[in-house]
Amino acid sequence: MKLLKVDTIASARDKSVRVMQKKGIQTVYKKLLEAQGYILAGDIVSQEPVPAFNRSTVDGYAVRSGDTAGSSESLPVFLECVDEINMGCPAKKEIHAGECAYVPTGGMIPPGADAVVMIEYCEAFGGSNIAIYNPVSYGKNVVLAGEDIDQGEIVIKKGTRIRPQEIGAMASLGITEVLVFKPWEITIISTGDELVSPHITPSPGEVRDINSYSLYAQAQKHGLTVLNKVVQKDNEQQLKEAVMQAMQVSDVVVISGGSSKGKKDATNQIIDEAASEGSFIHGLALKPGKPTIVGYDENSCTLLTGLPGHPVAAMLVFELLVIWVWRHMTCQPADSSLFARITSNLAGAPGKMTCQLVKLIKQENGFYAEPIFGKSGLITTLTRADGYILIEENKEGLKKDEIVEVFYI
Amino acid sequence: MKLLKVDTIASARDKSVRVMQKKGIQTVYKKLLEAQGYILAGDIVSQEPVPAFNRSTVDGYAVRSGDTAGSSESLPVFLECVDEINMGCPAKKEIHAGECAYVPTGGMIPPGADAVVMIEYCEAFGGSNIAIYNPVSYGKNVVLAGEDIDQGEIVIKKGTRIRPQEIGAMASLGITEVLVFKPWEITIISTGDELVSPHITPSPGEVRDINSYSLYAQAQKHGLTVLNKVVQKDNEQQLKEAVMQAMQVSDVVVISGGSSKGKKDATNQIIDEAASEGSFIHGLALKPGKPTIVGYDENSCTLLTGLPGHPVAAMLVFELLVIWVWRHMTCQPADSSLFARITSNLAGAPGKMTCQLVKLIKQENGFYAEPIFGKSGLITTLTRADGYILIEENKEGLKKDEIVEVFYI
Repeated sequence: MKLLKVDTIASARDKSVRVMQKKGIQTVYKKLLEAQGYILAGDIVSQEPVPAFNRSTVDGYAVRSGDTAGSSESLPVFLECVDEINMGCPAKKEIHAGECAYVPTGGMIPPGADAVVMIEYCEAFGGSNIAIYNPVSYGKNVVLAGEDIDQGEIVIKKGTRIRPQEIGAMASLGITEVLVFKPWEITIISTGDELVSPHITPSPGEVRDINSYSLYAQAQKHGLTVLNKVVQKDNEQQLKEAVMQAMQVSDVVVISGGSSKGKKDATNQIIDEAASEGSFIHGLALKPGKPTIVGYDENSCTLLTGLPGHPVAAMLVFELLVIWVWRHMTCQPADSSLFARITSNLAGAPGKMTCQLVKLIKQENGFYAEPIFGKSGLITTLTRADGYILIEENKEGLKKDEIVEVFYI
Repeated sequence: MKLLKVDTIASARDKSVRVMQKKGIQTVYKKLLEAQGYILAGDIVSQEPVPAFNRSTVDGYAVRSGDTAGSSESLPVFLECVDEINMGCPAKKEIHAGECAYVPTGGMIPPGADAVVMIEYCEAFGGSNIAIYNPVSYGKNVVLAGEDIDQGEIVIKKGTRIRPQEIGAMASLGITEVLVFKPWEITIISTGDELVSPHITPSPGEVRDINSYSLYAQAQKHGLTVLNKVVQKDNEQQLKEAVMQAMQVSDVVVISGGSSKGKKDATNQIIDEAASEGSFIHGLALKPGKPTIVGYDENSCTLLTGLPGHPVAAMLVFELLVIWVWRHMTCQPADSSLFARITSNLAGAPGKMTCQLVKLIKQENGFYAEPIFGKSGLITTLTRADGYILIEENKEGLKKDEIVEVFYI
């Protein structure tokens, strides 16, 4: 029997990133309207200045600003309106001294003009005579071409998870197909003789399968694709077949349950056999999350992960390891987190990192993090949680009011 | 011409909620795996205790705790193993004094037993003799039936936006179809003679349409359904036809552009005519966002909203008004926000609420909010933003280091 040395979460991440870098990460083009939530696979660089032409930010008269000097409520300046710019049309006629042109909000500023007087300060006086009651300075109410974005400027960075505003910005740049990282395709296998479908009323000793549902939704939340989810009895042969089949089509196979040292636990052995070079993680120095197995098969280029069967531990390890590796490889910025004061003393676990669920309480002087305890640690501790904190393995614990970093979950 | 009195954002929300309450809000059942992101339309109440039976949290031997008293490394207690509980099977055989039964993690505790000794502290000594090297107290390593959730307990509250952990919790309760609020069905109409599709290179004076893309994605982000998005020239007859058609099938028709007082702006008139009792909001005391029109048509039960054409203003008003009303009507908790210190003085706008985009900077002593300025205020100010703050209409402005509430966007 192999000596099973556990890994810290940091070393497990390192090892997993290294094998997944051999595999590499694919990119794919998505239509702009379908790109929300995907991760940009390259910087978005503007091919043109934005705006493309000098535009008015108000409805009014485009003028040479010098012409309006000295105008006032009682002593207007009179200019001759020589053009009316229509939305969407080029402004071709040059404005000379003593002239102006009507321009709507967003309309093009005609050559010669360098400012716009808001329509509220103007009055039409028969024919083409316009009285201007307010002076404007150079550039007033005008956005110059390229003022918002220079040609060649990076507008959105690689690794950005695309939000509505990024979709709007790309529309403005004429980008209608977006190069994004191709989401990993995942198969989820939930194992255990006690598991029955949520559709069934369990008999004594049986429980409804949670993990294939929660991990499915968690993968989906982070933009990954779930090819298939199955519930499998703890039968080594059947489980092995399910894993081998999943490896042919998946980037990642997630097996939950069966990775601790109980009598019927077969996951470790199956991953060790299925992975071309055996499993390389045999437990995490993480509480909860110890019974975690990871291997990589070079033939099918598949990451094989055995997560704890415990629903909370399964979700936390999936988040801390699999999702972390995905985020890292797709150049996403660090997990969004915030600092908060812990509301009670909290013990660490000697030699292990502790992942503690917390509820956030917002106060004007900052956030407080209230630890969520639950003896059984069943899934409802997670429904009450806003996030989690990590207590380092070399730390005895936390003192009430100590500042902690809270990661959302 | 009507006198156009502007509304505060609070009064606009009130008025909009009132008309939408007449319409009411529908609910619909979703399959559990497809329920992520939807809003629960009722409390989730457990119909049964969870766990349903006393379970072991470790691999080990279920015992009567009293039998283990006094046991130690050097002086073990010997118990007779009378049963081996299998995962998923009922534990029927009662444990009497001097007896124990093997039970795996998650397995059912047999009647008579009240604690479990971890397998690490036990040793099999030929036949059915088990040496116990460590005493356990009553209830040790056991989760009692109902300890996690009582029968009849509210597990998840109405108005919760469903996350992976809620999906897991519902699976554990046997809930496979979830009653959620039926997302509003929306049509987005982006108007303006200057607008061309992002697929086209604009001629001078033309710009690419942003709003139908960004509002589409924004609606999607908040779980609403976009039936259709169209770009429409500023032609009153065509625009009216598009609106009338959209009203037949949509809960909300969003028209962006054409709501200020320029020469060709027809939106106000169209909403006023299309809504059975005319438009009831003719401008917001909000910067940016003044040219906002809202009406409600009682025949088709449609909310008609005219948003500013400016892309940032359109997104902000959509968020502050339409999304706010949706969240309010579906009982969602207040927008997630945090407190931060503003990094510079900031002027308010007399008589108007100001919505200022900010970037968040995380420090260990809390967050700082850095205002994002941009003369043209084009869409890239939003791509740089993490959130926004609201400066009340009666406030002159904010002083550097003042604490502000930042809402994510």
